[in-house]
Amino acid sequence: MSITQLQEISARIRSNKLFETFVVSIIILSALLIGAKTYEINETALQLITALDWSITFIFLFEIVVRFLAEERKADFFKSGWNIFDTLIVVVSLIPIEDSELALIGRLVRIFRVLRMVSIVPELRTLLNSLLKALPQLGYVILLMFIIFYIYAAVGTTFFRPINAELWGDIAISMLTLFRVMTFEDWTDVMYETMTVYPLSWSYYMSFIFLTAFAFLNMVIGIVVGVMEDEHAAERKAQQAADGVPTIEDLSAQIAELKALLQQQQQRP
Amino acid sequence: MSITQLQEISARIRSNKLFETFVVSIIILSALLIGAKTYEINETALQLITALDWSITFIFLFEIVVRFLAEERKADFFKSGWNIFDTLIVVVSLIPIEDSELALIGRLVRIFRVLRMVSIVPELRTLLNSLLKALPQLGYVILLMFIIFYIYAAVGTTFFRPINAELWGDIAISMLTLFRVMTFEDWTDVMYETMTVYPLSWSYYMSFIFLTAFAFLNMVIGIVVGVMEDEHAAERKAQQAADGVPTIEDLSAQIAELKALLQQQQQRP
Amino acid sequence: MSITQLQEISARIRSNKLFETFVVSIIILSALLIGAKTYEINETALQLITALDWSITFIFLFEIVVRFLAEERKADFFKSGWNIFDTLIVVVSLIPIEDSELALIGRLVRIFRVLRMVSIVPELRTLLNSLLKALPQLGYVILLMFIIFYIYAAVGTTFFRPINAELWGDIAISMLTLFRVMTFEDWTDVMYETMTVYPLSWSYYMSFIFLTAFAFLNMVIGIVVGVMEDEHAAERKAQQAADGVPTIEDLSAQIAELKALLQQQQQRP
Amino acid sequence: MSITQLQEISARIRSNKLFETFVVSIIILSALLIGAKTYEINETALQLITALDWSITFIFLFEIVVRFLAEERKADFFKSGWNIFDTLIVVVSLIPIEDSELALIGRLVRIFRVLRMVSIVPELRTLLNSLLKALPQLGYVILLMFIIFYIYAAVGTTFFRPINAELWGDIAISMLTLFRVMTFEDWTDVMYETMTVYPLSWSYYMSFIFLTAFAFLNMVIGIVVGVMEDEHAAERKAQQAADGVPTIEDLSAQIAELKALLQQQQQRP
Repeated sequence: MSITQLQEISARIRSNKLFETFVVSIIILSALLIGAKTYEINETALQLITALDWSITFIFLFEIVVRFLAEERKADFFKSGWNIFDTLIVVVSLIPIEDSELALIGRLVRIFRVLRMVSIVPELRTLLNSLLKALPQLGYVILLMFIIFYIYAAVGTTFFRPINAELWGDIAISMLTLFRVMTFEDWTDVMYETMTVYPLSWSYYMSFIFLTAFAFLNMVIGIVVGVMEDEHAAERKAQQAADGVPTIEDLSAQIAELKALLQQQQQRP
Repeated sequence: MSITQLQEISARIRSNKLFETFVVSIIILSALLIGAKTYEINETALQLITALDWSITFIFLFEIVVRFLAEERKADFFKSGWNIFDTLIVVVSLIPIEDSELALIGRLVRIFRVLRMVSIVPELRTLLNSLLKALPQLGYVILLMFIIFYIYAAVGTTFFRPINAELWGDIAISMLTLFRVMTFEDWTDVMYETMTVYPLSWSYYMSFIFLTAFAFLNMVIGIVVGVMEDEHAAERKAQQAADGVPTIEDLSAQIAELKALLQQQQQRP
Repeated sequence: MSITQLQEISARIRSNKLFETFVVSIIILSALLIGAKTYEINETALQLITALDWSITFIFLFEIVVRFLAEERKADFFKSGWNIFDTLIVVVSLIPIEDSELALIGRLVRIFRVLRMVSIVPELRTLLNSLLKALPQLGYVILLMFIIFYIYAAVGTTFFRPINAELWGDIAISMLTLFRVMTFEDWTDVMYETMTVYPLSWSYYMSFIFLTAFAFLNMVIGIVVGVMEDEHAAERKAQQAADGVPTIEDLSAQIAELKALLQQQQQRP
Repeated sequence: MSITQLQEISARIRSNKLFETFVVSIIILSALLIGAKTYEINETALQLITALDWSITFIFLFEIVVRFLAEERKADFFKSGWNIFDTLIVVVSLIPIEDSELALIGRLVRIFRVLRMVSIVPELRTLLNSLLKALPQLGYVILLMFIIFYIYAAVGTTFFRPINAELWGDIAISMLTLFRVMTFEDWTDVMYETMTVYPLSWSYYMSFIFLTAFAFLNMVIGIVVGVMEDEHAAERKAQQAADGVPTIEDLSAQIAELKALLQQQQQRP
């Protein structure tokens, strides 16, 4: 069997709707197995699960090989981040591990197989991509938030460490405490404690909450609404173009045509 | 009395404003009875409530029959989900139940009669419909959230089960715990406990909170604003059409007319 | 002095910038007095406060009289809700009350004098009005939320009353408990308690949270964004009209003019 | 070396990309030192940190001097708030302080040096500026919220002080308690306590939560979306102008041209 034939068959398998459904079912089965293993189960069930687990690994291996063979230019296969992710997951699953330390990694890899669901279902992939696309926009926002946290944590550690070292021991712990305050989780306990020594320390907490809550809301809503609006404007434009609704540019062209006609008329004797 | 006469009378009753007000009052009375039954009441009052309850059931039965008879094509009646809901509620209310097990179902059915309010008041029906219409758009969002929950729950169970089996015992309990973390409900207690064994486990919680909170906010706001914007654009367009404000298409037609006139002029000798 | 002269003088006082500043200062002083009275104060200070309090009442009385006299048609004065509110506050403040029961009402009326700030500062009045304007739009949303609460409370009372009568004793208490669950306030304590008897009761809480949180977010954001968008569209339109930017209607008129010109030309021999 | 030469050299240093990167690194190092000082450190490390700290201060001093010299008109330098901030931070850092009271201020000043990050990185400066620009719009909103808080606090103190003086002792404490209620932090504990004396006091809390939560959401979302929309509209307009997309004004001008042509034609014999 020639390479070309193999590729053709692979491509046919890959684009088969039944094959896709089968792979999705296998991923769901794999997810269920992961869930099942967290329950108390007897020896027989465990052996069955282990056997199923290996079958799933081999089906995944087969699927990756098919997808790889179906690719016309093999180098393109590894250009997609999802393909690299899938290959890694399968390769690590194949390594037989006995060591208890490494066994943990084996279990984690099996858990991350659930993410293959996202790589297979196009709608989920689109959703995740649009989420990731908004992330870099958040970059400077997160940096600013981090600076606010850092400054408040440094101030907090300076003043409140003698009061409660567990919450304000060093700058890392203080930042965790401030994150807790930002989520409003028992933040008054933290405040009332420091207020016994510094009665005005409520201003520290309230300014922090206002700064982070307002800044966060402001910027997240801003980014989301901004992205949304651009997308919708683009969609509407595409829709109008598809519907044949004339644009202002079309009108301008039409009027220019009229002008040409009129000028032509004037040049007639 | 012929069938046609019966239908005519029924239609007249159904469209009577007074009849509608009467039915709404009965639904409110029915809701009040449900509330009243949750208080300690003496025997006489209980008998009164039971009597009222049966009267309400029969009034509802009468109303359904009227609505059914008023329908011109009987088959259309069951095409509306609300009609099926109303009929089911009334039919189950009619079954006399003594068994304590079934009595519970009888009580629940009576509670769901309050939902008839939504089926009667058109504004509420519109509101609920618009809510339900946004739900399928949320479908893939919920699936993605579920996958994130599932993976974090599997990882959490793997690591934290030995620390606190009540919170991380199996994958279902872990998912409930994670939902609790997402609502910020005493989540630091959960975190501090696991941090005694895994000092870096704060990254597990913070990444989870960022992922779910940001993803959730991003997607919910995105969907809501998107739906809103489309609706408003449609409304504004309809409004402009009603006001006789010319559209770009009208302008284009006007200019085309001008061109025709000019061309006609040019063809004149 | 004639009535007309009195009215003229009153109108001049009312529109005096200094008089307005003076009244605002008095309101702020009145607010400070209310705050001061909540601290432990000695007898002399209390007497001073009482004296100041009466002075404020008489200044307010004077201001109301001035505003009333300044009104050209006296009947119009009571058409404004704010005027009625101001008059009521002053009249009740004037009644000398010794009885401890009524003294409480006297204190409450003095507290509500702070609201006069809103009635005086136009920006605050506008803000409050725009808030109140959005409220009726919320009417059906609140009704729907109430129905959801009522049904869940009825179901909750039916099942959970034997478990904890303090939280699920009757339908009113259950609704309060559900409001607490909606604010995520120690809601897991409520849930874990009922899960010991009904292990599946987590679905009751999670469906409730999803329904109310999603519905609430959906509808509030929807209304706010909707109101915003309409306002902005109106503003932009007004701005464009002020800037002399031509509208599509203007274009249409211009083209119609052209057509008339052309037709006129054609009718020439 | 003349003044002009010095200015030229300074300007060249200031605009050097490498110099900017160097200053940012120094700021990050300074931030890390602040963090390091919050941990338990031995004497040698402390001496190293102190030495580094002084080096950083002198580098900052050098940088400010360079920036000052690079400025063509010296008076302009102090027109920028950021420059004043930078100068103040450096000057206070230079004062050698031994007194433990003042040493605290010295530490605080060193912490605020982290904010220099914002003054150096233009993207962060833009972000902070846009945040500050939205703040004055919030002015009246915050005033209205304050009035609501003040009134509720006065009412709360009047009724609930005998129940729990720690939460409702005076108007300031009551306002703090209300802020806590607004963040949903153990608010039911506060409510259940007062409900033992005033069973209807739940209405006090629920009206407060609705008023503040709804008002806050309404106004914050309103402002954010409003600012966003204006910015986007401006951006889109600038984009269209850059792309050469004709505006309605261009169309109007085109049609006017046509009209002129036609009128010219008509005046021909």
